[in-house]
Amino acid sequence: MNDTSPDELAGIIGTAAEAAPILAATAPRERAAALVAAADALDAAVDRLVPIAMRETGLAEARLRGESKRTSVQLRLFAEVVADGAFLDVRIDDADPDFVLGPRPELRRVLAPVGPVLNFAASNFPFAFSVAGGDTAAALAAGSPVVVKAHEGHPELSRRTGDIVADALTTAGLPVGTLSVIFGREVGVTALRDPRIAAAAFTGSTRGGIALAAIASSRPNPIPFFGELGSVNPVFVTPAAADAGLDALSEAFVASVSGSAGQLCTKSGFLFVPRGADVPVAESAGSIGEHRMLYAGIAEGFRTRREEILGTNGVESLVDGEVREEDDGDVWVRPTFARTDVATLRRERERVLDEAFGPLSIVVDYDDPAELPALVAEFFPGNLTGTIQTAPDEDPAGYAALAAAIAAHSGRVIVDGWPTGVAVTPAMTHGGPFPATVGGGGTSVGTAAVSRFLRPVTYQDAPQAILPPALRDDNPWGVPQKRSPAGESSTWGSLSSARGQGVGA
Amino acid sequence: MNDTSPDELAGIIGTAAEAAPILAATAPRERAAALVAAADALDAAVDRLVPIAMRETGLAEARLRGESKRTSVQLRLFAEVVADGAFLDVRIDDADPDFVLGPRPELRRVLAPVGPVLNFAASNFPFAFSVAGGDTAAALAAGSPVVVKAHEGHPELSRRTGDIVADALTTAGLPVGTLSVIFGREVGVTALRDPRIAAAAFTGSTRGGIALAAIASSRPNPIPFFGELGSVNPVFVTPAAADAGLDALSEAFVASVSGSAGQLCTKSGFLFVPRGADVPVAESAGSIGEHRMLYAGIAEGFRTRREEILGTNGVESLVDGEVREEDDGDVWVRPTFARTDVATLRRERERVLDEAFGPLSIVVDYDDPAELPALVAEFFPGNLTGTIQTAPDEDPAGYAALAAAIAAHSGRVIVDGWPTGVAVTPAMTHGGPFPATVGGGGTSVGTAAVSRFLRPVTYQDAPQAILPPALRDDNPWGVPQKRSPAGESSTWGSLSSARGQGVGA
Repeated sequence: MNDTSPDELAGIIGTAAEAAPILAATAPRERAAALVAAADALDAAVDRLVPIAMRETGLAEARLRGESKRTSVQLRLFAEVVADGAFLDVRIDDADPDFVLGPRPELRRVLAPVGPVLNFAASNFPFAFSVAGGDTAAALAAGSPVVVKAHEGHPELSRRTGDIVADALTTAGLPVGTLSVIFGREVGVTALRDPRIAAAAFTGSTRGGIALAAIASSRPNPIPFFGELGSVNPVFVTPAAADAGLDALSEAFVASVSGSAGQLCTKSGFLFVPRGADVPVAESAGSIGEHRMLYAGIAEGFRTRREEILGTNGVESLVDGEVREEDDGDVWVRPTFARTDVATLRRERERVLDEAFGPLSIVVDYDDPAELPALVAEFFPGNLTGTIQTAPDEDPAGYAALAAAIAAHSGRVIVDGWPTGVAVTPAMTHGGPFPATVGGGGTSVGTAAVSRFLRPVTYQDAPQAILPPALRDDNPWGVPQKRSPAGESSTWGSLSSARGQGVGA
Repeated sequence: MNDTSPDELAGIIGTAAEAAPILAATAPRERAAALVAAADALDAAVDRLVPIAMRETGLAEARLRGESKRTSVQLRLFAEVVADGAFLDVRIDDADPDFVLGPRPELRRVLAPVGPVLNFAASNFPFAFSVAGGDTAAALAAGSPVVVKAHEGHPELSRRTGDIVADALTTAGLPVGTLSVIFGREVGVTALRDPRIAAAAFTGSTRGGIALAAIASSRPNPIPFFGELGSVNPVFVTPAAADAGLDALSEAFVASVSGSAGQLCTKSGFLFVPRGADVPVAESAGSIGEHRMLYAGIAEGFRTRREEILGTNGVESLVDGEVREEDDGDVWVRPTFARTDVATLRRERERVLDEAFGPLSIVVDYDDPAELPALVAEFFPGNLTGTIQTAPDEDPAGYAALAAAIAAHSGRVIVDGWPTGVAVTPAMTHGGPFPATVGGGGTSVGTAAVSRFLRPVTYQDAPQAILPPALRDDNPWGVPQKRSPAGESSTWGSLSSARGQGVGA
């Protein structure tokens, strides 16, 4: 795929900017129906798209069919969010001549789309975190046009998907420019500097994300930048779970680490077990077939990290795995498992702690479960997930402090599951403190992701005729409106008296 | 006030970090009661604090008493928000074995406090945007400890307020370290670089805000930085309003520009009128007494901007005003009004467009009301507010496009009011695209400000015993819980069929 030319890029961003006010004014049901139309079009094209994705990414057919389905379901879920209208968080404060601080005007607030969003697609989910993926669906749901910078790992799939989805959206009545795809690394940087781009989203490496975030914040007009970067997703096995035997757990661990050749943001990089626990990964790992890595850059990064980890003093190999380059440059891998202990992790943190993006995970021996909460803060200050593996009928009190530590440093606390396989639902969080995310974005998976592409606008004493539909008394869109009537501040009395009844109780 | 020493600073941030998990675990009613106790303490101290504030800032007694009241009311409003619990945005997705993408785990999501917040206080609101002001109240409501970097313009007031409020909070049962005050410009920068600080808020100059934002984003672990920077708050007078006569409007304009010596983020810097309209500001301006400016830095900045504007070719003075420095260094001012036209604004934008923080505003002649929406985009891409002044019974259709342009480029659209005097309510927005704010913060006034200091955390398949109270089935805090039952995705059918009924309708 040739890089998008400067003229093409200017035209694409210009069209997106022109589409922005039109898209912002579409009724929620209209936008929702267009998202459903895009989902239908994607579903209808799956037999054409999956073979392209297989060729470009090396991912397996079943995985890609599932991912394509997830992507269309994601669009349908956001359609529900849009049609519901609660995401607009409409608040109406009636004028109050007797407000405690003096007469108060009428104030009506709605969340409005930020404007054209630039979305840097990821390599490892060619459907779900790419052209029509979660960031795109969330921005479109918010009412913002989207320019997707295609990942160089799957250009043909990106172009085809873009054509299909953009066509479905415009056929459904949304303006031309609602969705566009651009190509080229430098082209993406140029787009990020364009003053008409109002926000950006990114899923990828920590280094790449930090570089792009710096560009976004050093523009003459800085913009929000939501990056989902690195995460190593530690898993902690309780002593009771280890006592109950780790055969089944080891098998599930290997499956979670090896799926999609470990090229997932939620792959577990570390499995903490009581010292000496038997973790029989070899047999399961031996049955995992070779898997092609996504593209040369990721393969090279994985090879380097793997050699660095296996060459570290105090780290032993449990399963060597394999990294094999073919004549055509494709790299094929089998999963690698290593083992070390907490003392080595502390001593060699520069070599061992960083994410190894690919099928590699490290079993870590710990001596005392009471030290685990502090280890989370020390080694894993910002992660997408943290997991606790427990024994059946184990008393949760024993791992409550560990769960609290994980919650303080990551976006999702998992009990007796695996972090891979992220459900797309209202309550999902796919985010966390840096480096899991940068830009304070909250989540990039699940319907709460829509809020990143909205900003509040308040109308003060405006006549009904110039209000956006969501704020009008006749409420033509039927959205939830939270009203604060005049005189409501009298409820303070109850809070004041609560104080007398004993704070701290 | 001496600068906080490095040892003191380390102790203060350490105590805040220790307070963080304790504060996060307090029940909403307990935290709400503590905020009310802080408000009560502030109210009780007003007779002691206002004289200090008058001496340190030069602001008038009535203004400062009103501001102190606003500050305590603000704390009470946030107490209501906390007690209500809706701000936690609790979502519970039941496990769903039949979910369309395969079995779905149980997911429970809550918004958790980000951790210790560093709040850079402003000079121009020594109560409401300072130690116990809006950013502090919002962060405490979220459950985050706050370290306030006092503004050097009112150090004694900051110390006293900090003592009173911190004491009230701890007496009410919140942990030591919930609120602290630090002093010194470099000390603030050191604090911003401390890895234990999880987010920062700032109200002040565009230059200062950009510099601090860059520090926040270039830390080894970047953090969210919410800055409220510059705004010039244009006001547009419709031809019909001008035809109806601008005597009363001019008087109100002068009052809005001159109050607190124009040292307000929402002061109108520009009043657009039809060419040649009579704007009789001289008489009202002549009756405005001298006002002392807040401190030397602001006075110097105002003097420079005023001379630059009045010295610009094509800008005439309507009311010269005055800037007078006394022997003690205090600077006293009377309001300045100038007049120019759109062509000059365009030609001299480098000299004229930037904010002049103080009592100065520029009347701008325009030729065609149809050009106003484009002027908003050209001259005012990011503002806190934009205002339209209309005639009684004027058809709103005539200014709907202007209102839409203001909404696209600012946080608040005002009709027939003035931007100064920001109501503290649920629907208020005090924010806007850069440079009005940086960091995508939404609003720093009003109860929605709490959301800046929260981040989502999801628990997957966790036993009830380790869930935070807000997520438990027995819901001991009585917070709203939004539930997504299994099988709900069946509602997609209705959206799909809506499509067949005609999108775009």
